[in-house]
Amino acid sequence: MNMPKRVVIIGGVAGGATCATRLRRLDEHAEILILDRGPYVSFANCGLPYYVGDVIQDEQKLLVASPELFRKRFNIEVRTRNEATKLDLAAQEVEVRDLASGQVRRERYDALLLAPGAAPIRPPLPGIDLPGIFTLRTVPDSRQIRQWLETRHARRSVVIGGGFVGLEMAENLGHRGLEVTIIEMAKQLLPPLDPEMAELVRQRLIAHNVGLRLEDGVAGFDAGPDGSLFVCTQKGERIPADVVILSIGVRPEVSLARDAGLVIGPRGGIRVDDQMRTSAPNVWAVGDAVETRNRVTGEWDLLALAGPANRQGRVVADVIAGRTSTFHGVQGTAVCGFFGLTVSMTGSTEKSLKRAGVSDFQSVYLHPGHHVDYYPGAKPIHMKLIFRKSDGRILGVQAIGEEGVERRVDVIAMAIQRQSTVFDLEEAELCYAPQYGAARDPVNVSGMIAANVVRGDLDVVSWSELGLKRDSIMILDVRDPGELQGGRVESAINIPLAQLRERLTELPLDKEIWVTCGVGQRAYYACRLLRQNGFRVRNLSGGYQSYRAWHPLDGTQRG
Amino acid sequence: MNMPKRVVIIGGVAGGATCATRLRRLDEHAEILILDRGPYVSFANCGLPYYVGDVIQDEQKLLVASPELFRKRFNIEVRTRNEATKLDLAAQEVEVRDLASGQVRRERYDALLLAPGAAPIRPPLPGIDLPGIFTLRTVPDSRQIRQWLETRHARRSVVIGGGFVGLEMAENLGHRGLEVTIIEMAKQLLPPLDPEMAELVRQRLIAHNVGLRLEDGVAGFDAGPDGSLFVCTQKGERIPADVVILSIGVRPEVSLARDAGLVIGPRGGIRVDDQMRTSAPNVWAVGDAVETRNRVTGEWDLLALAGPANRQGRVVADVIAGRTSTFHGVQGTAVCGFFGLTVSMTGSTEKSLKRAGVSDFQSVYLHPGHHVDYYPGAKPIHMKLIFRKSDGRILGVQAIGEEGVERRVDVIAMAIQRQSTVFDLEEAELCYAPQYGAARDPVNVSGMIAANVVRGDLDVVSWSELGLKRDSIMILDVRDPGELQGGRVESAINIPLAQLRERLTELPLDKEIWVTCGVGQRAYYACRLLRQNGFRVRNLSGGYQSYRAWHPLDGTQRG
Repeated sequence: MNMPKRVVIIGGVAGGATCATRLRRLDEHAEILILDRGPYVSFANCGLPYYVGDVIQDEQKLLVASPELFRKRFNIEVRTRNEATKLDLAAQEVEVRDLASGQVRRERYDALLLAPGAAPIRPPLPGIDLPGIFTLRTVPDSRQIRQWLETRHARRSVVIGGGFVGLEMAENLGHRGLEVTIIEMAKQLLPPLDPEMAELVRQRLIAHNVGLRLEDGVAGFDAGPDGSLFVCTQKGERIPADVVILSIGVRPEVSLARDAGLVIGPRGGIRVDDQMRTSAPNVWAVGDAVETRNRVTGEWDLLALAGPANRQGRVVADVIAGRTSTFHGVQGTAVCGFFGLTVSMTGSTEKSLKRAGVSDFQSVYLHPGHHVDYYPGAKPIHMKLIFRKSDGRILGVQAIGEEGVERRVDVIAMAIQRQSTVFDLEEAELCYAPQYGAARDPVNVSGMIAANVVRGDLDVVSWSELGLKRDSIMILDVRDPGELQGGRVESAINIPLAQLRERLTELPLDKEIWVTCGVGQRAYYACRLLRQNGFRVRNLSGGYQSYRAWHPLDGTQRG
Repeated sequence: MNMPKRVVIIGGVAGGATCATRLRRLDEHAEILILDRGPYVSFANCGLPYYVGDVIQDEQKLLVASPELFRKRFNIEVRTRNEATKLDLAAQEVEVRDLASGQVRRERYDALLLAPGAAPIRPPLPGIDLPGIFTLRTVPDSRQIRQWLETRHARRSVVIGGGFVGLEMAENLGHRGLEVTIIEMAKQLLPPLDPEMAELVRQRLIAHNVGLRLEDGVAGFDAGPDGSLFVCTQKGERIPADVVILSIGVRPEVSLARDAGLVIGPRGGIRVDDQMRTSAPNVWAVGDAVETRNRVTGEWDLLALAGPANRQGRVVADVIAGRTSTFHGVQGTAVCGFFGLTVSMTGSTEKSLKRAGVSDFQSVYLHPGHHVDYYPGAKPIHMKLIFRKSDGRILGVQAIGEEGVERRVDVIAMAIQRQSTVFDLEEAELCYAPQYGAARDPVNVSGMIAANVVRGDLDVVSWSELGLKRDSIMILDVRDPGELQGGRVESAINIPLAQLRERLTELPLDKEIWVTCGVGQRAYYACRLLRQNGFRVRNLSGGYQSYRAWHPLDGTQRG
């Protein structure tokens, strides 16, 4: 038998812990050492906001596996509060400092895995070190925030950053009864989403009395004479806060790798190949610290998500054990819940496609119920499906709603993984009983609409194009007159679908007609009818419901 | 322009109505006539049990589209209470009787679609026509049952047939406060499921005080002197009932087709090709009345489901309009909810594979939480994944639980549709946040276990094989001793996983060791450990939780 391999893993949370335990299953004789500078390994970092929010009440629940369990169950040595300070690639050694004793040792490795994660960004703003300003990355961080909230009887909170983690923090602070204000530099919340989808998020937050400051940044923090805290914005506001959470984003922890001369990619993560090998021999890297290839666009991405980190850890274990596993990239599946809403996405957005220079795509909007309308309690799912116009290949989906959102996104995530087209969505055979869906599931409906476009049966147009074309086209609303009282599109003429065949003479043959209704279905019927009668028609995708994403009732203008 | 086509559609519910409206979108000028012998077209037949159960309270909700709406919106003529009595294929005519006037007419067609559906089986048993014995297929049927329940103040119900519709009826009668007894001739409930999965259903029904009579049939019905009703079983019971629902199954309505000489398949449905053409020129058929090809086994199936019927209707519209759409078969995706439980499946079962003569398959069992354990409220999903052992191709899944069941089945339904393998499930990138799932979603976990089998890293064995081998193997339970108090496997020896490395000498090298734990995960760890130390091991798939499906605590013996 060969000498057992010595494998050193730096960082023992998602990817690192997974690699360690899988490696043990593949190689009972390898010597495996996990080093972590924090006090815990294998903790549930995705649960931290919920621990702050007291949804998870027992801190012990967050500790998935203890060093003792690693030792007894897996024969894996774990050293917490041990920070790797230097890599010696030539000697295949790591310099490690024991944070308790201050002692420095060198650990030899046959294989080294870097799984250091990412650190919350803490910008050097005036007053950033005032008490009451927190970031959230570790169990001790969340414990400190809980203690602060309790001992200070905090009432007013400010969350800086309106991304996924920021909104989870807002949800959890709201759950504890705090007032919440979110400050976001971008024009929209949830910057990974397309702006008109993020608008639905904005509306939900406003309905739940969350204060919003979009397109504003933080200039600094200020303490009142009584020790009270204020957030000063770049637009000049001074917002009182009993607690501030910084959720601006994370930055890959690459200092160790960079100092050792490993290649760092342009997005700031460690560059790896599809077996998660870094540029140095016998050194692998996984998780939030690496750049991964986007499966849809082929671009390099930074993606701080637990699922991919775990899969990467498995791949590394396989490769170290002499197998040929590969990591096939990421597609950016994400989900987030707050104030009763679920927001989810997978694949590319219009934004990310444009950034990648892709122009062969089309978006369609739809608002199907999460189950049949005739069964009580149906909730709309607001969906945007993006696909290649030339061949129908699915590129991405964004979905927002109260029920059944993650299910539809998961189905489309699998479809994208398997390089499917909208025609595959059209004919998918999915679960249906009245309380679970519809004979035409939202996934099917999204595929049908998109397939109509790809087949050339339907021209769709986005409400975003209206501004440019308003004077040269006619807008036709085919809803029944009674429906218009709830809101109508300016300058649209109204002919109910049921009267359309008799009233064709009222429509122009020399002008493009853009047709709308409530959600787009009747407009589709109208488009087919009109086109076969010689009219030039396009369907305003998503109907009046989508119109309201570009023209909110509170008068805010979308960018 | 050509003369407009005349299209006659017999049956205006799922497939028929869908074909009609899609055809209108494709061809504004076709003449479209729907004939239905019932009083309604396009009603929500899947909703009928819930109308009986008063979950849906307004009958109008079930009527998706009226003849008037068909006429005004789609320029489609609908004649209800018009029964097609004869096909004249040579003349391309249908003989139609107006049930109100008794008048008989002939309708010429260029294209004819048969969408007559299926009729509930009503066996010619003694007393079958006594008042209070119902089948459920139409809106009037459900109205009659509701009236009977209300006017008779029914308290005790008997449902005959424990299939999907029978259980939906049990759920709905239970929802109205009635006592429910189910009589099922088979050894198990939900005959499409494998028996050990159906056992979980049995346990749930018993926990909700549903009376069960398995392996018993109905001999007849009896009226007491006061008009009270009794169900007499073949085993000799006489069960009092205020209402009886027959849910034995449905039979395709093929008399019209058969009388005209159309080919009927061996399962009793109309035989069609993949464009839904019958054996007669210009005659198509869709829905519950046809046999469709199973995508997984290639066998012909009868499947009374709305989703496939709708898709078939679309295909027929396309083909009549001169397009080349094809129907790619069915995979049998189904879902059913009762007493807080969701039961769902897609693809093949072990049963159906054996019936089709397939032997290259393996099943694995798992019981993951529907979301991470550390977030409150996680509920187990009991899953059985079936795949080809030779190459990992996914063949089917069955899943049962309280939350998130249909979502996982839908993802695997898409995977099967796209001819995926368990390796694709392993690396699927699905929605994860603590309240929505896990970094290793149940779908991933099912793929990982199966991939271990296909790669040869793990031998699994089913508890069903225990009986044959008991004397020649050793059973090793690696749970902690405290866990055994909740129940243990007879004759298993117990060595906790954490002690296994030190206690290897207690295990035999000359005997196969079958390893178990709670759900199978620790047993997998143990198997890897033991195998690398030279032992012959197999993982008892699903652990103690699956053991209980074969050895129920109430002592019932599984077949």
